[in-house]
Parts: sequence; C-alpha cells; structure tokens
Amino acid sequence: MSFTFERIASVGAARAGIFTTPHGPVHTPAFMAVGTLATVKALDPLELRAIGCEMILANTYHLHLRPGDDLIKSLGGVHRFMAWDGPMLTDSGGFQVFSLESLRTVSEDGVEFRSHIDGSKHQFTPESVMRIERNLGADVIMQFDHVIPGQSDDAVARDASERSVRWLVRCKAEFDRLAADESVASQALFPIVQGGIHSALRQEASRAIQLAGDWKGYAIGGLSVGESKPDMYAMLEVVNEELPVARPRYLMGVGFPEDLLEGVRRGVDLFDCVAPTRMGRNGTAFTTDGRLNVRRAELRADPRPLDESCDCSTCMRFSRAYIRHLFVAEEILGLRLVSLHNVHFLVALMRRARAAIADGSFDGWSRDWLARYHSRPTPVP
Amino acid sequence: MSFTFERIASVGAARAGIFTTPHGPVHTPAFMAVGTLATVKALDPLELRAIGCEMILANTYHLHLRPGDDLIKSLGGVHRFMAWDGPMLTDSGGFQVFSLESLRTVSEDGVEFRSHIDGSKHQFTPESVMRIERNLGADVIMQFDHVIPGQSDDAVARDASERSVRWLVRCKAEFDRLAADESVASQALFPIVQGGIHSALRQEASRAIQLAGDWKGYAIGGLSVGESKPDMYAMLEVVNEELPVARPRYLMGVGFPEDLLEGVRRGVDLFDCVAPTRMGRNGTAFTTDGRLNVRRAELRADPRPLDESCDCSTCMRFSRAYIRHLFVAEEILGLRLVSLHNVHFLVALMRRARAAIADGSFDGWSRDWLARYHSRPTPVP
Repeated sequence: MSFTFERIASVGAARAGIFTTPHGPVHTPAFMAVGTLATVKALDPLELRAIGCEMILANTYHLHLRPGDDLIKSLGGVHRFMAWDGPMLTDSGGFQVFSLESLRTVSEDGVEFRSHIDGSKHQFTPESVMRIERNLGADVIMQFDHVIPGQSDDAVARDASERSVRWLVRCKAEFDRLAADESVASQALFPIVQGGIHSALRQEASRAIQLAGDWKGYAIGGLSVGESKPDMYAMLEVVNEELPVARPRYLMGVGFPEDLLEGVRRGVDLFDCVAPTRMGRNGTAFTTDGRLNVRRAELRADPRPLDESCDCSTCMRFSRAYIRHLFVAEEILGLRLVSLHNVHFLVALMRRARAAIADGSFDGWSRDWLARYHSRPTPVP
Repeated sequence: MSFTFERIASVGAARAGIFTTPHGPVHTPAFMAVGTLATVKALDPLELRAIGCEMILANTYHLHLRPGDDLIKSLGGVHRFMAWDGPMLTDSGGFQVFSLESLRTVSEDGVEFRSHIDGSKHQFTPESVMRIERNLGADVIMQFDHVIPGQSDDAVARDASERSVRWLVRCKAEFDRLAADESVASQALFPIVQGGIHSALRQEASRAIQLAGDWKGYAIGGLSVGESKPDMYAMLEVVNEELPVARPRYLMGVGFPEDLLEGVRRGVDLFDCVAPTRMGRNGTAFTTDGRLNVRRAELRADPRPLDESCDCSTCMRFSRAYIRHLFVAEEILGLRLVSLHNVHFLVALMRRARAAIADGSFDGWSRDWLARYHSRPTPVP
C-alpha cells in the first residue's frame, strides 16, 4: 500500500503518527515548507533535508503558468525537476485563482482567470487541475476547491462549500480515469473541507466528502484567511469530531508557531505556510522568545545566535551581529540564513511536539512553550 | 613557522605547491573566491569548503566602512565573524579607493576619500590600513599601494610604483610595531609589485621590494585593469624572472579561466576575482565549451546540466531547464546554483592544473583545454 497512516501515540485530540508516501515517511505532526515555483525560496533541497524537513509543497497555479506543467512532466516530474526526492504535495490552485478577484470569473464548470504575469487567459476546472497535478507528479494532490474570504456569510459559504463537494466528485472521476489510463506515479487525492466559519457547514462538508470516497487523508481549507483565531480553533474542533481518526489531516496555509501548536492540539497532522521563508527574506526570525527583527540597531554587536536554544546551521555558526550586517549590506546569504533558521524552527517545533505527544506531556509542554513565546511584547517594531 | 611554501613539482615556470598558513594549507595553484563584505556573494562557507575552495578573500575598504573593522575585531575577527575557519586574505583597499576617482585626493601621506555609501570622509594611509587589516585578522594581508589605470604612461606608472614601495616600507614598520605590541594572530604582509605595463618599472619594483624585507609571498598588482592580454602576459614574464622562486606569487583580481591558465604558465600560484559570483548572479555559467547564458530560450527544456563534464553539486542535480526557470522566475536559488558552479569551475580548473603540473603534462593539457574553451563562438548573446 503506497499511502498509510499509523498513529503512534495521542494526547487528547493531538496525535503522533507516520504518514507513509511513495517517496518515504513523514513523521507527524509535521510542517511542510512551501516551494511555490518548485523551489523553497532561497533554500537548497539539501538544506531542507539536513534540517529534517520531510515533506514539501509546490503550487499548481504558479507552476502551470511558469514553466508549465507539460514541461515539468517532460523533464520527469516535479521531484526530479527540483531535485527533491522526498514526499511532496501540490495544492490545486484554488486559493490562488480565487485570490485574483477582478481577474477571474467563477461558474459551476470552473474558474476562468488571467495570469498575474502576462494577463493571458486560462481556465481551471476540476478536470484540468487533475491533469495538471498528474503532470507535476507530487505524492499528494489536492482537489480543486472554491475558496471564499474568511468572514463570508452563511449563504456564500454554503454555496462555495457545496460546489467544492461537487467539484471533488468531478476531480475523483478524472483522477481515477487518469490513473487507469496511464502508468503514472502513485498519487493520493485529498479532499478539502470548506464551510467558512459555520459549524454546520463544516460538519455537512466533512460528511459529504466521506460519502464521496475513501480518502488517504483530508485537508481543511478556508482557514487563516481573515477570520478570528477563536473561529479558526472552533472550526478545527468541529472537523476533528467529524473526520476519521485513522487518516491524516492537513490544515492548509497555516504556519505560525502558535497556530501549529493549537492545530496539533485539535487533531491536525500536517501544516504548510510561506511565513518562515517570507519572514526570513524580510529579516524577521522566529525565536522561542517571540519574533526578532534582525535589522534592529541593538543587534549591531550582538555575538549571540538568533535563538540561543536553537541548533540549526545558522545558529550554530553565526551571530546576530553578522546576520544584521548581511541584511544592512543586502547580502543574499542573510536571506538564506534567516529563511533556513525559520523553516528549521517550525520543523523542530513539530518534532518536539511529536516527542511531547509520545511521552504524554504535550498539554503542559505546549502551554509552557506558548507562554514563553508570548511572554514579552514582540520585539519587532 | 606559520607561513611556508613548498614546491612539489614544476613544468617550465608553472609550479605546484603547498602554501601553509595559520588556518591551514592551500594547494597551489589556487583560485580564491572573493568575500567582499565577509560573504562570498550568495554562497555559504560550508559550500565553499565542500567544493574544495581552500582560501578566500575579503575587502578591507568595504569592511572598514561596513560594519567596521573595530566591530569585527570585537567579535573575534573576520574568520569567526563569517564562520570561515580556513586561510584568508584581505586586500588593502588600494584598488577601491583609487577607483573612487572624483571622491578621493592622493598625497604622499595617503588617500583621502569619501565613502561610496554615505559620502562620509575617511583617510587611508599605509599605517591606518595596517591597523584595519590587523583588526580584521586575515592570514595574509596586503600592503597599501598606489593603483593606476592599466595603460598609464611611464611617468605616471613610475610615480605610483615608487610611491607603492615607499608605502610598503611604512606598512612594514607599522606591521612590525603592531606585531610587537599585541598578542594578535600571526599574519603575513605581502608586498605588491606595481609598474603598469612597463617592463623596466616592474623589474625595478620587484627588486626594490625584495630589498625592503624578507616576504612570505608576493603580489602582482595593477594588471587586468584595462591593458591588453599580451601586455599582461609580458609583465608576468618579467616579474617571474625577478621574484624569488621559493615564495608564492599572487596575481590580484585576475580570474577568468584563460587568464588563470596563462598565469599559471608564467609562475603565478594564487588568483582571485569576483567574476564567478558576479557572472553567477547575472546568469552566466562557465563551461568547458565557453560561457553559457542560462536565460537563453533554447535551454527551456534542456535536461542537461550546465556542464556535462562537471561534478559540482549544481551539475550533479539540476538541469539547464530548471536553472533557466529559476532565473526567469527570479528565484534566489538560481543565483546560488550558478555562483556555486562558477566558483567550483575555477577551483576545479586549478586542481586539474596542479595535477597536470605534477605529472608533467601541463603544457599540452592547458593548450588543449584552452582550444576547447575557445572552440566555438561564445554562446552569450
């Protein structure tokens, strides 16, 4: 069996497990770094491997436009293209095309949109997205879904959520057809639970999705898109009750340290977010005492590492003073070092959470961790 | 003895040797990557080490202005600051301040100049440069010299060359005073042979410098600054006859593949140049068949590595198509991969030259190598 999920331990809803894919295992809970254009920005796949990052993500929308999924297929698929031989996931482009706003038209068939690069016209349908994700060849591929703003009202959320379920059925039909037709890599199609911040809709979506197939895992979409934190946590609790406990759950686009721990506490196994690399390029580092702006003048002669409790390759070698110098001088190495530290920070946080679930200490440990993380006003001006 | 030079083999004027420094050995001939601001642009010291780069360079002018040599000293010196524990060399800032043109005033005492960053006033004298290079703490430090354009006439070249010798005497006095005063790291001061493209001046400078001290090595400056290739090669031949055979020679700022081989043939042991990293960031790769512009449309679906005979980490993993994609999408990893390949290319070229000197085949091998490198019109548009 190509895709399995073994639960090793649990503390309340929090679980430690192993999600096995054709490209290897992912020890969960896990943070997946985002390689939008088939590169995790500023980082080398070897560095990701070295920090213990097991699974990464790439974006269907971006790769379809540039360099093209046909090209990537002709070069052996996205794994070989970007020299990442570990587990990979592609999103469906739903989030991106619905973010285009004035550049797109939605119908039951799919979404017509114009490229943000050159204005060229494209259409995503459940069927076309399956073909693109097949071409890319990631291990886990996401259904095409209808994404709405975080605070949409019940009617809008219901329309989008129900459409997402109808699109899931079409995705599955095309996915199955392609799997039968071609000798392609083994892939798993994940459905996405939508429903905005409406408990009943999240419940209905969770149930409808399970009626539509036997899935290797489930994604939770449409969160961390403008709604409040309590709303997000409430939705995770609803979905946790509904989804089968024996399958991994992936909370899409969520990736700040506090969100990860609160997600794990509510039964989430996989996360992704561009935050660690985007913040890394902007010169903001995660630390166990909150965020640190590496450009601050006080760091000018600071011999300490970004985070004194961190054992990443950046912190084991370089001072805050040096990293500040690199940012002031606009040196590329600065972007690399802070991006690497930030991705390591989230990967290591999930590794630590896993150990705390395994030894039963997750509740106390995560409470203490968050208290320290929030213990002082964030030093970012 | 902290600094030694052992010659292992020679073919004509070409020599293979080992230059030993307090931070380890350098197998010569060797190419040194340039870490202008205490970072070899876009690369990590671990990558440099992995490709066999043994010695690197940093720039006194740039580090004095930003972040300041006092700061670097307080943080343990440039080795620790940038996490490079191998041999290092700093230039004297002479080349940079004389390049400032309208921003500087030259006198016998030294050069007054304005920072290219903020216009602030500074003065470099032989004495102040020695203090700065002591603060930085590289293994090899260069004298402060008077640099002139490549095609300067005899009078201008004589004036600058003779001033450089007088400044060398002042550098040495300050260097000796500092070495006696402080318990600083062991450093070697290299003199610089100037004299433009005038054989008699190069001869006179070589002799005057040797009368001024017993040096651990010699630099050849003021070449590759606008003069013709035959003029440069002629000067190397003159200097080769004059300098002691038992000491390493460093040809400053020279670093294209053809210049390296022609330099080795004329008795040069060490080279440096920003070309491999600058070209890397611009998307131009060295290959055994000449230069390659990685943005070219023909590379769109090219599955081959940048150079099919290369075993660097870039070429062992990534296709031209992928690297082109990274440049088109303006991804940082593209700058990294081509910079790494280019530095590896020159380091490996010198490693190969060393082997060819050791087995006596240098003349034929280098002739063949250059013939292939020049065999087709350069594919850079």
